[in-house]
Amino acid sequence: MSGFTHFDEAGQAHMVGVAEKSETRRIARAVGKIIMQPATLKLILEGGAKKGDVLGVARIAAIQASKRTSELIPLCHPLALTKVGVEFNVDESNAAIECIVTAETLGRTGVEMEALTAASVGLLTIYDMCKAVDRGMRMDGIRLLEKQGGKSGHWVAAE
Amino acid sequence: MSGFTHFDEAGQAHMVGVAEKSETRRIARAVGKIIMQPATLKLILEGGAKKGDVLGVARIAAIQASKRTSELIPLCHPLALTKVGVEFNVDESNAAIECIVTAETLGRTGVEMEALTAASVGLLTIYDMCKAVDRGMRMDGIRLLEKQGGKSGHWVAAE
Amino acid sequence: MSGFTHFDEAGQAHMVGVAEKSETRRIARAVGKIIMQPATLKLILEGGAKKGDVLGVARIAAIQASKRTSELIPLCHPLALTKVGVEFNVDESNAAIECIVTAETLGRTGVEMEALTAASVGLLTIYDMCKAVDRGMRMDGIRLLEKQGGKSGHWVAAE
Amino acid sequence: MSGFTHFDEAGQAHMVGVAEKSETRRIARAVGKIIMQPATLKLILEGGAKKGDVLGVARIAAIQASKRTSELIPLCHPLALTKVGVEFNVDESNAAIECIVTAETLGRTGVEMEALTAASVGLLTIYDMCKAVDRGMRMDGIRLLEKQGGKSGHWVAAE
Amino acid sequence: MSGFTHFDEAGQAHMVGVAEKSETRRIARAVGKIIMQPATLKLILEGGAKKGDVLGVARIAAIQASKRTSELIPLCHPLALTKVGVEFNVDESNAAIECIVTAETLGRTGVEMEALTAASVGLLTIYDMCKAVDRGMRMDGIRLLEKQGGKSGHWVAAE
Amino acid sequence: MSGFTHFDEAGQAHMVGVAEKSETRRIARAVGKIIMQPATLKLILEGGAKKGDVLGVARIAAIQASKRTSELIPLCHPLALTKVGVEFNVDESNAAIECIVTAETLGRTGVEMEALTAASVGLLTIYDMCKAVDRGMRMDGIRLLEKQGGKSGHWVAAE
Repeated sequence: MSGFTHFDEAGQAHMVGVAEKSETRRIARAVGKIIMQPATLKLILEGGAKKGDVLGVARIAAIQASKRTSELIPLCHPLALTKVGVEFNVDESNAAIECIVTAETLGRTGVEMEALTAASVGLLTIYDMCKAVDRGMRMDGIRLLEKQGGKSGHWVAAE
Repeated sequence: MSGFTHFDEAGQAHMVGVAEKSETRRIARAVGKIIMQPATLKLILEGGAKKGDVLGVARIAAIQASKRTSELIPLCHPLALTKVGVEFNVDESNAAIECIVTAETLGRTGVEMEALTAASVGLLTIYDMCKAVDRGMRMDGIRLLEKQGGKSGHWVAAE
Repeated sequence: MSGFTHFDEAGQAHMVGVAEKSETRRIARAVGKIIMQPATLKLILEGGAKKGDVLGVARIAAIQASKRTSELIPLCHPLALTKVGVEFNVDESNAAIECIVTAETLGRTGVEMEALTAASVGLLTIYDMCKAVDRGMRMDGIRLLEKQGGKSGHWVAAE
Repeated sequence: MSGFTHFDEAGQAHMVGVAEKSETRRIARAVGKIIMQPATLKLILEGGAKKGDVLGVARIAAIQASKRTSELIPLCHPLALTKVGVEFNVDESNAAIECIVTAETLGRTGVEMEALTAASVGLLTIYDMCKAVDRGMRMDGIRLLEKQGGKSGHWVAAE
Repeated sequence: MSGFTHFDEAGQAHMVGVAEKSETRRIARAVGKIIMQPATLKLILEGGAKKGDVLGVARIAAIQASKRTSELIPLCHPLALTKVGVEFNVDESNAAIECIVTAETLGRTGVEMEALTAASVGLLTIYDMCKAVDRGMRMDGIRLLEKQGGKSGHWVAAE
Repeated sequence: MSGFTHFDEAGQAHMVGVAEKSETRRIARAVGKIIMQPATLKLILEGGAKKGDVLGVARIAAIQASKRTSELIPLCHPLALTKVGVEFNVDESNAAIECIVTAETLGRTGVEMEALTAASVGLLTIYDMCKAVDRGMRMDGIRLLEKQGGKSGHWVAAE
């Protein structure tokens, strides 16, 4: 046994059976940030007010990506999200934007991957829209913050 | 003007015109890593040999994601990739796995987003397959390493 | 507050939470028509009998589009349709074809968008197949006819 | 012969051969509008300024839909768009919003369907975001305005 | 009446209503094989051990295809798979590889098409990866082996 | 070296580089058949005339699947098909329907996978539409018939 549930006893990848799991309300919250040059952040913040709305576009991309998660992650179960919210926090002192995604479903499997995928695509979209002025941006700290529902109960990231 | 090419003069998002750009060979290389507990890395490395092949699955996910980039990133142009390669490097001392993606096309727009999207999805797939044993894994340092072709020529990330 | 449920209190787009809504049988019926030259309609009607079956192709396109609705409409919830039917009515005196779609689900959100999206794509497919002979066709009157299920109960379009 | 190019001599649907056509710059412009209650339009216009940005979301939906056209319209050729722009015009006296899409490619087939599909999905997205306050909105006048490139040359809609 | 449930009384294709069906655990098992030259099979088997893992890639492709079934098969209902497993059996004496897929859901419609689609795409992926050395491979005997759940109960293929 | 081009020297799957290949007209023709009970075939043939048109639906499904090939087959290059045709031949004496697909592109890689994928999905769609009356249908002999263009030139299947 490999210790990973995504492989069967013979070590072959499979989409693990969840029919026996109970249908509960499951929530996951994921975060990630993109670090850029101060001048790039300034352009983004000006745009939100009256020019191009980088974060508005990134928010839509994140929400739409959450719905494609099971197409992108091979062993993910398809599931019907009941809620997705995307929040951007600007950290001016570090010239960074943080993206926090909350995803929810009523189902038999968790929504961690939906939240993480949405956060990643939200950050990638910021990169795409700003890359002409700042090719060296870096995405960091993409991780799960919190998870509720299911057998494993409430999990909160350390620190 | 916002300074961002993805907005027109009125600040409205658009898919920018590239018909005038010349068709050249364009290559991009992106990187990212996932940091985990040493025990998780040990399980992955054992699996590659004779049990579940986490990195083999992640590689396929990354390649497939590169082909879906223009569906995920709203203002990306669709393009026909001519080559995609994915390399994983294990950093045992830091309990991390690095994912490097090289993407190539013959076309009028660059393939940075394809390489970055593939790297992100490769890392997310590792997360998915290992999350049952290590929910606190973190994805870091997702960024462009190098870019060739097009008007801006050869760009290499600092350091 | 904007009055629109698709935005949160800060005015940011989100996929609104529906976990608290009850799962009921929901039905929506949408309509739209395409107006063309009489000669174009004549060709379509002849084709249905023994040559190319324009409406048969459009019907399949409409059904398939209903299943892609949550990919196309950013803030739509994914849902599992339990039934989709597409009906075409020919209005020879106005040289028009009407497309009526009925969609149904057992779920927590309505299926208006699925019915409307299917009707739109059904009409677009007719346009595509006939555009070589009649580029000036026009799609009109795409709207919801009726909606059942959910908290808002039975709604029927005026007139 | 049916007069429609999308059917072969036996009346069977096919994706018509375009390899012999020359690769030219092709542009299409399509339009459509959505008619609503004056109070709904008022809410949208207020939102654009400081609350929820309905038109910003609809613009992104339209652009993304243009890239999915060949998946939605069965006999459409896949093609690589080089530019897509979406413009909304508010007609306050008629309580309507007009959506104009310009699509461009360098290729062997026209981009009419891409422009029309984008306009339709842009309008559907407005409907989706406002349907909680105005279920009776109606989409009208979806049609091609103009077409350039290819053997048929420059075509402009009458009136 | 045509005898086929996928058409209504007028002979028009529709996605048949399943809201009245009860939600039960439904399982389907499908099989298919690909026949090749003995030298090709030898290369695949060597690869699995230490070179390219053809069957590992084909397994992922099969699992992912099962999730796209309702997009590919026009009148299929979308459904949320709860489990998918893919098994490959090597038949060295006939130079063939057999692919068996087991799919499961809790729902109102069966998962035969998901199992059959996954098996087909698994075999097509083997073809793709080996076609450079053996273009004449043939896929045979793709069929349903077994089906459980729903009104029709347990069905097992003859022989 | 594994002998398979889809793996690099280290045996890792990749999307092989084709930028150096020349752009030529490439055509592939694939075939497959579905074998059923004589009564099932009779129902299909009656339907084509005046009831449900099984083969018309299957033809559209096949054409649409050809456009999704690179999403389904992990290491396939995305390409812009210039033509797809689908032909059904009825073999009454063996109670079978044969599906022949011809695909064409102008590009740097062949279209064998597009033709084979389309044929497979065409047959799967026939299975889907008839499975309520004949669950034991079998798909056989899915293979490449012919291939033109590219370095390997004209290839025709034996016999």
